Order: sequence, then structure tokens, then C-alpha cells
Amino acid sequence: MNAGFDLALIRERKPLVHQITNYVVMNETANATLALGALPVMAHALQEVEEMASVASALVLNIGTLSDDWVEAMLVAGRAANRADVPVVLDPVGAGATRYRTETSQRLLAELRIAVVRGNSAEIATLAGKQAEIRGVEAVGEAAGPELARESARSLGTVVAITGPVDHVSDGETVHAVANGHELLGTVTGTGCMSTAITGCFLGVRGEDPLAAATEALVAFGVAGEDAAKKAKGPGSFHVALYDALYALDPKKLDSRAR
Amino acid sequence: MNAGFDLALIRERKPLVHQITNYVVMNETANATLALGALPVMAHALQEVEEMASVASALVLNIGTLSDDWVEAMLVAGRAANRADVPVVLDPVGAGATRYRTETSQRLLAELRIAVVRGNSAEIATLAGKQAEIRGVEAVGEAAGPELARESARSLGTVVAITGPVDHVSDGETVHAVANGHELLGTVTGTGCMSTAITGCFLGVRGEDPLAAATEALVAFGVAGEDAAKKAKGPGSFHVALYDALYALDPKKLDSRAR
Amino acid sequence: MNAGFDLALIRERKPLVHQITNYVVMNETANATLALGALPVMAHALQEVEEMASVASALVLNIGTLSDDWVEAMLVAGRAANRADVPVVLDPVGAGATRYRTETSQRLLAELRIAVVRGNSAEIATLAGKQAEIRGVEAVGEAAGPELARESARSLGTVVAITGPVDHVSDGETVHAVANGHELLGTVTGTGCMSTAITGCFLGVRGEDPLAAATEALVAFGVAGEDAAKKAKGPGSFHVALYDALYALDPKKLDSRAR
Repeated sequence: MNAGFDLALIRERKPLVHQITNYVVMNETANATLALGALPVMAHALQEVEEMASVASALVLNIGTLSDDWVEAMLVAGRAANRADVPVVLDPVGAGATRYRTETSQRLLAELRIAVVRGNSAEIATLAGKQAEIRGVEAVGEAAGPELARESARSLGTVVAITGPVDHVSDGETVHAVANGHELLGTVTGTGCMSTAITGCFLGVRGEDPLAAATEALVAFGVAGEDAAKKAKGPGSFHVALYDALYALDPKKLDSRAR
Repeated sequence: MNAGFDLALIRERKPLVHQITNYVVMNETANATLALGALPVMAHALQEVEEMASVASALVLNIGTLSDDWVEAMLVAGRAANRADVPVVLDPVGAGATRYRTETSQRLLAELRIAVVRGNSAEIATLAGKQAEIRGVEAVGEAAGPELARESARSLGTVVAITGPVDHVSDGETVHAVANGHELLGTVTGTGCMSTAITGCFLGVRGEDPLAAATEALVAFGVAGEDAAKKAKGPGSFHVALYDALYALDPKKLDSRAR
Repeated sequence: MNAGFDLALIRERKPLVHQITNYVVMNETANATLALGALPVMAHALQEVEEMASVASALVLNIGTLSDDWVEAMLVAGRAANRADVPVVLDPVGAGATRYRTETSQRLLAELRIAVVRGNSAEIATLAGKQAEIRGVEAVGEAAGPELARESARSLGTVVAITGPVDHVSDGETVHAVANGHELLGTVTGTGCMSTAITGCFLGVRGEDPLAAATEALVAFGVAGEDAAKKAKGPGSFHVALYDALYALDPKKLDSRAR
């Protein structure tokens, strides 16, 4: 893993990360992308997603607030990205909570070549055909182990990144565990979505190795969370400090802080 | 009133609060819900609102940025909530400002069983058939008294919560006045919407007594506003401190701070 | 230029600024409008934009996240504003990045009477029929000079405000340069959109002189950016401090700080 090296690349190349994401977190994931050093662009119209996705360095698909025209746009953008070899990361927000979300996630996985799926344990377990408990868009119940990451990566045929108290990233063979992060991340909406956007940033410079990109992203985001927590008095000040911390991440020290 | 007791219940049970709300404040009301201790979920697609509303502990309908498919989703979600005895709170943002908002609010009130309507004096007066002055989505003119709360609760057949310098909550008989809050709340967009979301949180544990739930919510939100104001240098830092303050609310001291 | 005088007018009259803008920055531009002292209202439904735009003091059209029904609403709102002599400011976010954005900007300019177009150098150059390099929604390449402002104002028949390290505002004859601002503005998404919303606020009290209104807006926003930077540790804290700074702007000192 070379999280520091790739972070420096992001800041040098400023990869364009096209995001079709939910209304709740658009501002937040755009700002996280920008704070890290990449360039976000939000565009969801059928008339332009093909053009935008083709020139992007990565495409982020996030189903947090679905509707049919957005799903259609995700498919069109995803196909354009696939044709142009632009890596795609999927965030199946709330898969398992409603049939619509589960089926949409499955459809995107079936029709597109997805480099990384980033979700919580309940979302990933649902997509891997296992029992899971989810309330709204939050996983509940016991933590997922490395086995869920490995098995779901195999069954989905993609790199899987499961975030939680300890994150697990797998390509179906290797499993990386990332223990960086802070519990305050769970008190701010959209931090999961931010980690997906950050995964898009790393894919934008390390698309040929999605296992590395996803792992590095979770290290970078987790370390930023740890830094932000030191200055936080609660969810509001933590949220603010998180952007400052992403911006201040030091490429030279990043790998030594991976846990 | 047992605001402290019910706040402790919210943190223990983490009620799922399904919100169909406007684009402007989605992130903000989700974060306020989470900071208080409940679980927000945003979903507006016709394909899933019925499923989501049925399993929620409360449903929040907010018409701040309307369009026809969202209104349709609110009706479908509201009917599902009514069937499942999930309490519904309505925020008629901008009723009186355009015919579309007035008529949509009236339609939601006519077709659904609404537990609480939370609005400013102009919005509530409009719905109660009285003259009101509204500019955009802000009430102007003199403060509403307890009589407007009582009369509108009677005519609308629901609990009414009118927020302003002093809030008034009524079920048509009793009127509770809540003087908590701070003028900086008026400098941040969506604080009214947040108070509606917080009302949804309290309804999620005290749905059988909407008068108590709405009053407790306004006490909790107002006290958080007072705490946040102490650390604020303006609207930006106040906004941030508001989430910290909601998170730090002490159930044991809450009732003694009600004014 | 009387930026201070007009800022005092804004706070006294609280002009209603109707904004049809993108999902990413709605909360941010509403809060910037409110922090400055004006009254924002967000409404995009065909059923109500005519009514809302007619009673507003200014209309802001921002194409940051387009789709066809929003374009239609912008046209209807714009015509209503034109009929009622409500000044209109256009933010052609991403013109040049996709055909859809370029053509939509051109259509709005052709069918509506626009008082001010506020964009970055690539967006404005695109609309003026010149070569420009844009990645996503960010201009890249060398800074635009005053000539681009003057020429594009002539060819578009409107006041043009080009923001960058130095802003240039022109009506086709006069060119005003504004050097206020701070590089941290480039690290937060939507600060360009905020400057457009602030332009709407100044148009709301100085609509008869769009060259002055646009220049004053960029001075006010730039000075607020400078003040915010003093308290910032990165993009997150800068973003928060920006609202505090807009709120704290002193009308008596504003003109002396123009650079």
C-alpha cells in the first residue's frame, strides 16, 4: 500500500471525479473531494452524464436518494465509464432497507463493470445474499468480519470495502483490515458517502489496482477522522474539522499512521 | 412535560425518522436528527416510500421545495404511515407564499391524519384561513399569540406548533408556550425545518401524546439553540455549535431549563 | 461604487432573492444570502415559480445540476421576472464542460433579459464563443484579463462578472477589477455560486445599475473571504467563518477595503 504516494498523486493530477449521488450529501462529498485535492463534478442529467463520465478519472454512483430517472442516468454514465475504462465505485446506500434499493444495487452490479463496492455490513451482506439487519440506512447488529468481505467480493466479482469500527477490503483473495477512524464519524450523516467519494479519488490515480485504491482511501479518510476528532466538541465541530483534516493530510506520514 | 425522559428514550431506542423534505435542508435535518440521538432516513421514491414509512417510528413531511412527484410520494408515504399508526408531522413551508404551497398543505391535511403541524405564524394563519403576511418562506408582521395556536388546532383538527420568538403549541384546548431559543436561529436557513425533524424524533417515542411530543421538541431545540449561541460568533459558527449542543443535551437538566 | 451604502440598504429592506439553483449548493447560497442580510427563497416547481419570481426583488438562475424540468422552470421564472422588471442574474455553471450546459446557458441568454452573468473565465469565454479549457466545472489555464469581460459583455449584451484571482466586471464599456478574496475560496464548493447569490442580493436593491451591483457584490464577498481566512485552519473552518464574516461585514468600512 502506498497511500501517501497516491495522495500526492491526487494533489498533483487533480483527477476529475464525476459523482451521481444523493441529495443529502452532495455538498459534503464535493467538499471532501475538494479538500483531499481532487476535483468533484456533480451531474445527473441524461443529456450530459455520458459526456461527463467519459472524461472523468473516476465515476461515483451512490443510491442514497433514488428515483427512476437517476437510476437511468447512473446506467448511462456507468456504461460510458466502462467504455472509456474509467473506474466506477458504487455505494449501495440502504440496500436491504427497501426492495427498490436492493434491486437497483443488483441491477447496477449486473449491468456495469464496478471496480469497488463500498458499503456497511448490512448493505454488503444483502447484496451477497445473506441475512442482514438494517434500519433505514444504518447497519445494526454485530460487526462483519473479514470473511464477509472475501465472500462478497467473490460472489459480486468486484473489490468490496465494508466500513465499520474496523473496515475490511477484499478482492476475493486478499483481505485488508483498516482500523483507522473514530466513532464520531457515526454521528454525522454522509460520512460513509464521503468515504466512497474518497475511494473515487484514489481510483482516479490508481484505477488499475482497486484493492489498493479502496484500502488507501479508507486509511486516508480514517486518519482524517482521527485528526478531526482531536478538535471536535461534538458532531458539528467534528464535521467541520474533517474537511480541515482531509486538506491537511500529510502524504509523507500517511502510511505510517495506517492501522 | 417530560422532555428529559423522552430525550433519554430517543437515545435508547433510536427511533427511525423517515423524512420527505426539501433539498435545501436535507443534510441539516438528517444531522440534527442524528445529533439528538435518533436515526434519520431520507427516501422520496414512489417505489419505496410506502415500505420505508411503514417501518419508521415517525414520518416528517416538509414541502420546502415542492414538485408534483414529491407531493404524490408524500401522500403515499402518509397513507402508509396512517395505516401503520406511525405519527406524521407536517411542515407547510411557505404556505401562503404561493397557491401551490397553500393548496398542497391543505391537500396533505385533508387526505392524511396528521399528528402535528409545525410552522411559523404566517403559514399556520394561512392554513387556518386567516390573513397573514409572508415573504418567501418567512413570516413577517406581529407575533402570533396563543389564540392562533388554539384556533388553528381546532380548525385543522391536529396539534399545532407555531414557532417564533415565543413558540405556542396547542391541541385546541391546552396551549403551551415555549420561550426557549435564540435570535441567531433566524440567521440560519432550515432551523424551522430542523425543529420539525426534532418534533418527528419526539413523536417517535411519544406518538400517543403529540401535544407533549411537540412541546418537548421545541424545548429541546430551543435549549440547544441557547447553548449554541454561547459559542457562536455569527450564523456559521452558530450552525456548527447547534449540532454539538443537540448532541450534548443533558436529559437530566432539560426540563429545568424549559422556559 | 457604494458597496457599503447598498449593503446597509440590503439589511434594511431585506430583498427577497428567489433562487433556482443546483442541489449541491442550495443550503450554502441560502445561508450566504441570509448572512448578508437578504431573504432567500428556493422554489423550482413550474406551478409556483412565476408567482414567486414576480414578487421577488431579484432572481438567481444557476445551472449547476441541470435537468429539463428545471430548465423549463428557469425560463418560466425568468419571463415572469422580466415582465415584472425583477433583475435576473445567471450562473452558467460548467458551460463548456458539456454541450447540455453550454446550450442551456445560451438558451437562457437568448430567451431572457439577463442583468448579470457571473462565471469563471472558461464559462464566460465559452459563452462568448472563444476557446476555453474547463474540467468539470472548474476553469483551468491562464487568468482572464479585463478584455474578456469587456468583449463578452458586448457580445452577450449584458453585464459580465468573471471571478478568479482578480475579478473583472464589465458592461461592455467600463471594466472594474476587484482584487478582494482569498485562495481558500477555491477549496470550498459553491463559493462561486455564493458570489452569484450575493450578486442577486445587491441587484435586489441596485437593480437599475447592474454594473455597480455586480462589482459591489464581489467586493463584499471578497472582503468576507479575507476576514474568514484569518480564522481558518482549512476549508471546513473557512467555510464556517465565511458566513460569520458575511454577517459581520461593516457597511461603513466596506468601500475602504475594496481593492
